[in-house]
Amino acid sequence: MTDRSSAPHRGDSPIGDVPAAEFRAAAHAAVDWIADYLENPAAHPVRSRVRPGDVRSALPASPPTHGEPLDAMLRDFHATILPGITHWNHPGFFAYFANSGSYPGILGELLTAGLNVNGMLWITSPAVTELEELTLDWLRQLLGLAEGWTGQITDTASVSTFYALAAARERAGLDVRTQGLAGRTDMPRLRVYCSEHAHSSIDKAVMALGLGHENCVKVAVDEQFRMRPDALEAALAADVAAGYRPIAVVPCVGTTSITSIDPVPAVVRIARQYNCWVHVDAAYGGVAAIVPELRYLLDGVDGADSMVVNPHKWLFTPMDCSVLFTRDPATLRQAFALLPEYLVTRTPDATTNLMDYGIQLGRRFRALKLWMIMRAYGAEGLAERIRHHCELARDFAGMVHFEGGWEITAPVTLSLVCFRHVPAGADEATIATVNAAIMERVNARGHVYLSHTKLDGRYTLRLAIGNIRTDREHVELAWRELRDAAAVVGNAAS
Amino acid sequence: MTDRSSAPHRGDSPIGDVPAAEFRAAAHAAVDWIADYLENPAAHPVRSRVRPGDVRSALPASPPTHGEPLDAMLRDFHATILPGITHWNHPGFFAYFANSGSYPGILGELLTAGLNVNGMLWITSPAVTELEELTLDWLRQLLGLAEGWTGQITDTASVSTFYALAAARERAGLDVRTQGLAGRTDMPRLRVYCSEHAHSSIDKAVMALGLGHENCVKVAVDEQFRMRPDALEAALAADVAAGYRPIAVVPCVGTTSITSIDPVPAVVRIARQYNCWVHVDAAYGGVAAIVPELRYLLDGVDGADSMVVNPHKWLFTPMDCSVLFTRDPATLRQAFALLPEYLVTRTPDATTNLMDYGIQLGRRFRALKLWMIMRAYGAEGLAERIRHHCELARDFAGMVHFEGGWEITAPVTLSLVCFRHVPAGADEATIATVNAAIMERVNARGHVYLSHTKLDGRYTLRLAIGNIRTDREHVELAWRELRDAAAVVGNAAS
Ligand SMILES: Cc1ncc(COP(=O)(O)O)c(C=O)c1O
Ligand SMILES: Cc1ncc(COP(=O)(O)O)c(C=O)c1O
Repeated sequence: MTDRSSAPHRGDSPIGDVPAAEFRAAAHAAVDWIADYLENPAAHPVRSRVRPGDVRSALPASPPTHGEPLDAMLRDFHATILPGITHWNHPGFFAYFANSGSYPGILGELLTAGLNVNGMLWITSPAVTELEELTLDWLRQLLGLAEGWTGQITDTASVSTFYALAAARERAGLDVRTQGLAGRTDMPRLRVYCSEHAHSSIDKAVMALGLGHENCVKVAVDEQFRMRPDALEAALAADVAAGYRPIAVVPCVGTTSITSIDPVPAVVRIARQYNCWVHVDAAYGGVAAIVPELRYLLDGVDGADSMVVNPHKWLFTPMDCSVLFTRDPATLRQAFALLPEYLVTRTPDATTNLMDYGIQLGRRFRALKLWMIMRAYGAEGLAERIRHHCELARDFAGMVHFEGGWEITAPVTLSLVCFRHVPAGADEATIATVNAAIMERVNARGHVYLSHTKLDGRYTLRLAIGNIRTDREHVELAWRELRDAAAVVGNAAS
Repeated sequence: MTDRSSAPHRGDSPIGDVPAAEFRAAAHAAVDWIADYLENPAAHPVRSRVRPGDVRSALPASPPTHGEPLDAMLRDFHATILPGITHWNHPGFFAYFANSGSYPGILGELLTAGLNVNGMLWITSPAVTELEELTLDWLRQLLGLAEGWTGQITDTASVSTFYALAAARERAGLDVRTQGLAGRTDMPRLRVYCSEHAHSSIDKAVMALGLGHENCVKVAVDEQFRMRPDALEAALAADVAAGYRPIAVVPCVGTTSITSIDPVPAVVRIARQYNCWVHVDAAYGGVAAIVPELRYLLDGVDGADSMVVNPHKWLFTPMDCSVLFTRDPATLRQAFALLPEYLVTRTPDATTNLMDYGIQLGRRFRALKLWMIMRAYGAEGLAERIRHHCELARDFAGMVHFEGGWEITAPVTLSLVCFRHVPAGADEATIATVNAAIMERVNARGHVYLSHTKLDGRYTLRLAIGNIRTDREHVELAWRELRDAAAVVGNAAS
């Protein structure tokens, strides 16, 4: 790219964009960089090493007065932004549920950015609505769900769950849409039920909907961390007796801490007796049902009212892409639809206007990347990748299991392993300190990035597999790093 | 790209992505296509011409079993998706507030997709949090706001406003977070105030928060469609007397139908007397304050509690990017923060975890594109582009004003013109029919895309300017098309 410093104020022309040639050069360079980067993301430390403030203080505190050439930004991207990146694309990223980019997904994002359409109404880009409907029906088929489910893409599972619970609140028949919850003598306290291990997005949705955090009831789990149907039934019965009004139950297929699988069929049966909406949080685990032998994970879901699955977790789709499926779109619409005059169009009644199913009006063309991913890998390619991750998790669990001084702390149901080091004779407090030290040591080295949780107060490490670039060698490396760190931490302690 | 049909099941390899070489070829082709496309978006009809179902029915009803090469998707993109696109990038797109892509924005999106990080916590990519903080401080400076505002990027103004009103609800001191709104004897009805011309996102936020649509009070406007301070004061006083509890007022800087500007200083003064949170909806109009002589638009905002501005409307930023500014992040945090064990990290207290300020956990690296845009155009380049759009609006308004049989129906404050054809002697019903017919005729021709609204029941056309590629020739073309259509519609009627 030519140096444009001889042509000052280049961005100042009042009309139009920067020169196309400049974009071509910068974007081609970016494509090549991305391809190089993804051929070897392990060239970077997985967890960023910057200290708080490093990135911000390296950049000017005020915007430039005059425009700068695009390659100035690319230079700063490499010099300043990249060191501040924690690499979710790194094959040693095991800290949170995977969120790995993939080539077809990036290609989709690029075209989406180029088109830059807003699919709020069918007519504002029919392809956005129709490809979203088609792609989500493909996904429905891959997951083995019955016909009669419709889907919409949202940005996050947090929003998908929020919408589902808004529909549950509306279905309670209390006209919450118009009259609200506050200051009504005819309004009982409404409650939502999930397990102790449910994700914080359920709590946040309950809070945001004005139901109150104390009305997000945490049901006890069994020894495999699954919601106990008897405890659910008891909680519902006790609350009804006490004058509460249960409106929804949220079983989880693949909890965040341990990927436990709540018993959806039993939950659905009980919830029906109490007229509750059933929303299945399968944000992470749901896509595993693409693997034929794991399809049982979604048993019973066809009796539920809604389900969230996140392609941006374990389906190789770049951030962001969550899918809210429902069998009752009419109630979702009832909770949210509003048609001001400036959005009235003369399209046929048969068309869907996606804005009617939530609060978000503007809508990116997110279906494009998901559609490209499903096509690029095909049903079998997706299943094999997910299956492979589950195999790697079992392999890793085997290594831990057969090593003295280490233990598996939760059943391995999918691609997450919960485990910890247990030095001989150590009490819980020591175990927590030792494992935190092991984790911090491993994470600091830059090859592997893990996280932790607590299970019944027991400190536990988590190795979450799901990156499209993760293979056996990376899992073995994680295990080596962990044992080495344990040895060092152990020596330091003795 | 080589034909890969000789290598069947190419996506089926259980590990890793499709070949990097294939991505390079497809992504370079996509970059060149985008550059060509944006050099002449007017080569496409601005409003898609497909009929409902055309896009969906042209594509297979089920996903492929085996992976397909990326260029198969590019072929379908051109053959099937593109005809289903309504071109928001087209210089004749005047239908809704602009949402035009720009080269630096697309470059930013491409890099964001390649990195594919999730900035939920500072440590999960420090650059996401820090560049977001820095970029929004740049924007604050460009808008001429005082220090003490902090911002966060959300996907849409709808969500930004929803968060702001959740904070307002929390600040009411009723412990809504924990106890909720329902079934409490100590809970009054809470109310939110905006003008009759406020955007439907305010209504939707009020509904979603469980306040009830009837508690979104629409305050009367003056003859220039601005919220009347006396009417606001009267509504607040009457509601308090009737036992309601006002919690927020939402003035708008640039209403959707007519870009009227509510009197923020007066609203702030009155709202303070009633302990209301003031949230300014400047989703569209706010960025105009980058133009020095338009800075007055945000007069009084420094006394408000929050404001939304949308770079994805009039700041040339690809979908999606909305900014929620607040002077009271602590209350926003109080409404939403929750820290489950699996998200505990050992970073210093001084770092911000963006997930604490809303319900959305996953977070794309949206600041990158916004930062690139501010740098590529610079403060003056941004101001000149926005100023130019306002000039074009005044030019168009002049053409309409001086033409017999046409009228301007609202003051032109920014870059939107409300106008209509008024055939001699026609009544309101006829005027509505005639203008709807004119609009439909113009929109069908493919060069220009307009929308309509109703002002006090009067049917009005809207020409919204804001696309980075729109220039005087496009506005003149719109005017020619409108007059031609009016002539044809008039002849048909006589
Ligand atoms: C004044 C105003 N506020 C809010 C919005 C909603 O914007 P978004 O689509 O980002 O939610 C709009 C959309 O046009 C608007 O004009
Ligand atoms: C089970 C479960 N549900 C919901 C979420 C929230 O996902 P998102 O970031 O898309 O809101 C997560 C995130 O890890 C999760 O594990």
